[in-house]
Amino acid sequence: MAQGSARRCLRLEPAAAREVLGAADTLLFDCDGVLWRGEAAVAGAAAALSRLQARAKRLCYVTNNSSRTRAAYAEKLQRLGFPPAEPRQVFGSAYCAARYLRQALPPGAAAYVLGGAALSDELGAAGIPHLGPGPADLPGPGPADWSRAPLQPNVRAVLVGFDPHFCYAKLCQALRYLQRGPDCLLVGTNRDHRLPLENGAAIPGTGCLVKAVEVAAEREAFIIGKPSRYIFDCVASEFEIDPARTIMVGDRLDTDILMGNNCGLTTLLTLTGVTTLEEVKGHQESDCPSRKSLVPDYYVDSIADLLPALED
Amino acid sequence: MAQGSARRCLRLEPAAAREVLGAADTLLFDCDGVLWRGEAAVAGAAAALSRLQARAKRLCYVTNNSSRTRAAYAEKLQRLGFPPAEPRQVFGSAYCAARYLRQALPPGAAAYVLGGAALSDELGAAGIPHLGPGPADLPGPGPADWSRAPLQPNVRAVLVGFDPHFCYAKLCQALRYLQRGPDCLLVGTNRDHRLPLENGAAIPGTGCLVKAVEVAAEREAFIIGKPSRYIFDCVASEFEIDPARTIMVGDRLDTDILMGNNCGLTTLLTLTGVTTLEEVKGHQESDCPSRKSLVPDYYVDSIADLLPALED
Repeated sequence: MAQGSARRCLRLEPAAAREVLGAADTLLFDCDGVLWRGEAAVAGAAAALSRLQARAKRLCYVTNNSSRTRAAYAEKLQRLGFPPAEPRQVFGSAYCAARYLRQALPPGAAAYVLGGAALSDELGAAGIPHLGPGPADLPGPGPADWSRAPLQPNVRAVLVGFDPHFCYAKLCQALRYLQRGPDCLLVGTNRDHRLPLENGAAIPGTGCLVKAVEVAAEREAFIIGKPSRYIFDCVASEFEIDPARTIMVGDRLDTDILMGNNCGLTTLLTLTGVTTLEEVKGHQESDCPSRKSLVPDYYVDSIADLLPALED
Repeated sequence: MAQGSARRCLRLEPAAAREVLGAADTLLFDCDGVLWRGEAAVAGAAAALSRLQARAKRLCYVTNNSSRTRAAYAEKLQRLGFPPAEPRQVFGSAYCAARYLRQALPPGAAAYVLGGAALSDELGAAGIPHLGPGPADLPGPGPADWSRAPLQPNVRAVLVGFDPHFCYAKLCQALRYLQRGPDCLLVGTNRDHRLPLENGAAIPGTGCLVKAVEVAAEREAFIIGKPSRYIFDCVASEFEIDPARTIMVGDRLDTDILMGNNCGLTTLLTLTGVTTLEEVKGHQESDCPSRKSLVPDYYVDSIADLLPALED
């Protein structure tokens, strides 16, 4: 909406909110830090979404998290009191990665997966043969054994998602598949450095694992999740989306807001997640174009702040 | 030796070799790809080193490999027929990392180690308490458990070396120690992307693991091994070294040759390892200063080519 002119990260007061929401027909929501934190819904968020839906806004959920399927997200939305969503409204990086591979791989080609059950389920639903999820042991005591472990002949992609069983043995196998050359794709679900937990702690994110594989393979991964526009392209190919009438709502500047800005969406930052206004200010005052692209059009303390603008 | 003017990667013919070797009192040798490949000595390499030693040249061994102790390298040199070496002539990244931490850590501080038995042995020899080597399991089913696993209060450094037991659980613990802030150092033995094996295959190198930890911690590691000059400083602090009278002999441009050039040594590339002359040519013809710094002063097909210059 602020394309062409500098984005100013204005507080979205009720009057402006009425105008901005009135001009939109679709809202894309990041989930963690926006709708909920862990298992606790953000207060008032469910009511805000219910009113948006009552006003016939299309609501979609766009998340880099690769640890849940579309169906699991739909179930969590319902469980936390959000308006009922169909799985097709959910664009998680597991589903979108499977969608990408279904398009990019030749028939019968398989994926070697560093990831968990959700990634496996979405690949299965997309009909893509795959191997890798779960723990893996080193196939022998020394490097010579590791470089001779069996490989599947039909593997044509290495897919890296969040994998708590990530280990050196898997890194070895990933490298060996990728040494087949450009015929073997390298795909990462996202580059998030860390996953914040409810208690203020954080655990290493998928970005650490993607980078380890990239360094070994001396190749750059194709990234599915935000800020890659691929995940938005998935939404736009399944629904009729007019970017000028679409709002991206998120709590992270380098994923949610950057993707929204890059795709010509109106961007709305909520402060219930990982970002503070001071960080935005730093980017806003910078001369660096890449930092300026992290500045949202608007911000709210919480998406519950949209409620007054949605009253009858 | 070629400092100030462009290095030209000249073939070291016997006449020039006599002059270059005559002007040197110390030679630093990389090991894998220079003296041996796996368990096979490079033909003629042992004879060349014996003659250098007979001419009272000081021989040191400078290797990024963190999987062997100084003593193990001395034993391997002897086993493959090289002139007897004392452990103190060997500068492996495991030993040098322990040396670094002994200087950098306050008394009683411990290191959390991603690495194997050699790293553990060198840390033990340096009197540094440490934990981490060996396999690690996830301390429970979910992220909340992983972020609550016990931490040692006295850990003040995370040391990342080659670790075939590298896994997500260790990455979590490394991040949690590093979140203690700048009081907890982050040190990597080296950034090698891959370790080449005898059969032409390769396995992921320590650089992949260092990068994964760096991405999680959002910090850059202090690197011990080549091209870092720290490993050369170790040699120079244990022996009286005049860089102008020292030759670095190696097979890798971005580690051996770069370090040698950066430290003002004469650099000699041997083609028995991972580098081809075509790669050197590419750097030589480039306009980029950082690529030019990868060009050695001289090259030989094998260090056995030094033999004629060492005949009486």
